[in-house]
Amino acid sequence: MSHGVQGYNPRTGEPFGEPVAKTPDSEVDRIASAAAVAFSAWSVVAAADRAVVLEKVADALDAESSLLVSTADSETALGTPRLTTELKRTTNQLRLFAEVLREGSYVEATLDSPNPDIIPPRPVLRRVLRPLGTVAVFSASNFPFAFSVAGGDTASALASGCSVVVKAHSAHPSTSRETARVVVDALREAGAPEGVFGIVHGTEAGVALVKHSAVRAVGFTGSTGGGRALFDLAQGRPDPIPFYGELGSVNPTVILPGAATPDIAEGFAQSLTMGVGQFCTNPGLVFAPESLVPALGEAVAATSGGAMLNERMCDSYKAGTDALAASDLVSVVSTGTRPDEAWAVAPLLFATPVEVFEQNLEKLTEEHFGPAALIVTYSSPSELHSVLAKLPGTLTGTVHAAESDHAEAGEIAEVLRRVAGRLIFNAWPTGVAVAWGQHHGGPWPATTNPLHTSVGATSIRRWIAPVTYQSWPDALLPAELKDANPLGIPRRVDGVLGVH
Amino acid sequence: MSHGVQGYNPRTGEPFGEPVAKTPDSEVDRIASAAAVAFSAWSVVAAADRAVVLEKVADALDAESSLLVSTADSETALGTPRLTTELKRTTNQLRLFAEVLREGSYVEATLDSPNPDIIPPRPVLRRVLRPLGTVAVFSASNFPFAFSVAGGDTASALASGCSVVVKAHSAHPSTSRETARVVVDALREAGAPEGVFGIVHGTEAGVALVKHSAVRAVGFTGSTGGGRALFDLAQGRPDPIPFYGELGSVNPTVILPGAATPDIAEGFAQSLTMGVGQFCTNPGLVFAPESLVPALGEAVAATSGGAMLNERMCDSYKAGTDALAASDLVSVVSTGTRPDEAWAVAPLLFATPVEVFEQNLEKLTEEHFGPAALIVTYSSPSELHSVLAKLPGTLTGTVHAAESDHAEAGEIAEVLRRVAGRLIFNAWPTGVAVAWGQHHGGPWPATTNPLHTSVGATSIRRWIAPVTYQSWPDALLPAELKDANPLGIPRRVDGVLGVH
Repeated sequence: MSHGVQGYNPRTGEPFGEPVAKTPDSEVDRIASAAAVAFSAWSVVAAADRAVVLEKVADALDAESSLLVSTADSETALGTPRLTTELKRTTNQLRLFAEVLREGSYVEATLDSPNPDIIPPRPVLRRVLRPLGTVAVFSASNFPFAFSVAGGDTASALASGCSVVVKAHSAHPSTSRETARVVVDALREAGAPEGVFGIVHGTEAGVALVKHSAVRAVGFTGSTGGGRALFDLAQGRPDPIPFYGELGSVNPTVILPGAATPDIAEGFAQSLTMGVGQFCTNPGLVFAPESLVPALGEAVAATSGGAMLNERMCDSYKAGTDALAASDLVSVVSTGTRPDEAWAVAPLLFATPVEVFEQNLEKLTEEHFGPAALIVTYSSPSELHSVLAKLPGTLTGTVHAAESDHAEAGEIAEVLRRVAGRLIFNAWPTGVAVAWGQHHGGPWPATTNPLHTSVGATSIRRWIAPVTYQSWPDALLPAELKDANPLGIPRRVDGVLGVH
Repeated sequence: MSHGVQGYNPRTGEPFGEPVAKTPDSEVDRIASAAAVAFSAWSVVAAADRAVVLEKVADALDAESSLLVSTADSETALGTPRLTTELKRTTNQLRLFAEVLREGSYVEATLDSPNPDIIPPRPVLRRVLRPLGTVAVFSASNFPFAFSVAGGDTASALASGCSVVVKAHSAHPSTSRETARVVVDALREAGAPEGVFGIVHGTEAGVALVKHSAVRAVGFTGSTGGGRALFDLAQGRPDPIPFYGELGSVNPTVILPGAATPDIAEGFAQSLTMGVGQFCTNPGLVFAPESLVPALGEAVAATSGGAMLNERMCDSYKAGTDALAASDLVSVVSTGTRPDEAWAVAPLLFATPVEVFEQNLEKLTEEHFGPAALIVTYSSPSELHSVLAKLPGTLTGTVHAAESDHAEAGEIAEVLRRVAGRLIFNAWPTGVAVAWGQHHGGPWPATTNPLHTSVGATSIRRWIAPVTYQSWPDALLPAELKDANPLGIPRRVDGVLGVH
């Protein structure tokens, strides 16, 4: 056992707080095994009771907001206003899942009457979704609350009836430890089974978790490289398990001619530089008429960067953008201000014609995590269809269009929806609402599984799997499937959806 | 290019029909690329129109029933009655998907109103499921119709709006070719885009298909070994794709004391030997009181085996059951008759005490594909909980119980539902109804993904992925998401399900 995981203040580069001990393999085994035991109890707690527990966890986190936010600000430099909002988003997320549990249709209860006369004959069938078991959750660096210890993966997995073991992110160990303390205490007070939630620290502990026989699924938010390595581990197990990774995303934005007016530039620059550009939905790739380049350039020149989450990200952003600036494939349009902080970077805007972009697609769609974007200039929107279709899978695709562009916007959407999980009209991709209709996903490498989302009500579906009861006596069926529908939930009966 | 794929008559061991040419890589590429082009057109055909096309394919297959059944009987020896029923099951499956398309809730249309006051603010969000692209379907040996060229994977993928390329199974090349001919002609006559369905032959062609960049998902039914190899290929791609494999299954049946009467034996023997035991849901593992062994043995002794689907399966069954018979872990209870046909085998029944079984779990849960079963004898049902929890993932788990066993049956179900996809009460696992509430899946190695089924209405979900439209103008939205709900389908509006 080497040193612990040390947090740093990105503004000063100095250590923050005490190092948090790396979790040895024996302890990972103990925590995962305890979570598996807790699963047996938690998975049979009624959904309405799990909802109450989630709300109590949300309340407990809200009550500790000042401590959590100030700790996170010291470790991430994301600032108090953003972190306060992010924590609220995190607790509202727990509350949305409480609502999902009470509504009840997430279990997809399905009842079929028998029919002996069709081929093949149909017995009485009743289908319901049940939790998978213990879930491993890998925290993200860039959302120390919303995609971290008590974030979306944890909230949706606990909601589903799964137990959870979180691998904390090394960029905010103290925030992770404090959040875990609040969650563990709140779960205990709410009467959830001991061990239903656990946390481990250190890269090796994360690897041990993905390989652990008690772990039945994995949620991950992070880089394409790190995600791919863990995905390969999960799929290479003797018993492969579902792995839900949200990885890299270029987030193309198409500004159509009618919308290409200078007043669009400020919104772009804000979206690009928010959180020092450390968003998976950062608008890093903008297709625009050449005439718009000066306005976009001026807007970015007026922005200020900030300290990135850790030294590695800062170095990687600088190296990547330096190499791009030095290449003859793009020109540098403008640079924002770099504040005088240890790991600070400056926003950067590049440009290249669409022909050059299309010929160098792989190189020019490399994600430079941070506040950098590439404008791809075009003369006519018709030049865009083939190149948009070739883009790597992405979380979002955005179109800015005036009334006169609507027909073209529709055609572009038909192309974009095959590479992107969310299509945005006349807005910017940063900001991901937590809602029934949200989808935060997309084809590889946006995620490792295009069917699933890590944000929104349906993210719970990643942790639940069907079981069908055939000819089972009513008294022995789960409440969701009993004849009388005692829970009063929406069900599909002989093909028809309704509360029956 | 070596020889073609040669079919054989399992009753005589003689070649049947002409060899079917193996598909060279260049042709696989052409077929997959054509399917990708066809996808663009097919994926935007209205669901109600796709429903009509599926029904026309079903009608065309029914119209060619005699030719298809007689060809399949020559290549599989499964017999005319079973194959006639299986073809009807196959066409009814196409018709169920037509019903699913018309009902329309399978796209999970979800509409959220904006709310600027919550954190984070919610814009107008509209979510719908859209087809993934071109799907590769690997046919099974044991269902030459229902899990083959026009089987469940093909039907659900075409229904979803995906295009399909089938890898034919080498055990019935002529049946595959004839079925494909009927399907292609029917699709063309119904106006579906050229190339929306294709077929390839040969192992190498299958490998090329899984690696092809145009293929966006794979469906597979077959052995654990073969499925694992293709799963690894699909996950090892530079862009991993969803792989849905239905692999091996031991299908435990627990006969509780009150139900352990001799009259249960005949149903067991029938289920075991149906189709020469070549079912993925074959009841290969029976937990029963020792007192029931003689009756089960007599019932199996009265059965007759039959010719297996191919020589390799026949040899593998014989080698596996010979080795088991020679081991001192089990005793041979009885043997059925082996008919005088080339690749015929005899049913076989083994027994072992639960303690021996639990100590040799891995060896004794090896699947011997064919009409062989192992009785695990117990004294008290309480001995079963720990061993059932340790079973490998399985498609089905069955409990036979009298009224006096109900409490125990409920406890056993709680254990079984964690390893099995379908729980059956007082019936046998063979026979898989095609219905809204069916689930034909389970944890590894029953399948490669416990969230999905290869039978039933929800099998369509394997081929569709969400896209969310944010703040998009109504006129440019897909019909499923327009304000007025012009298709009249069930949707979730602000969290509430209904036709609105």
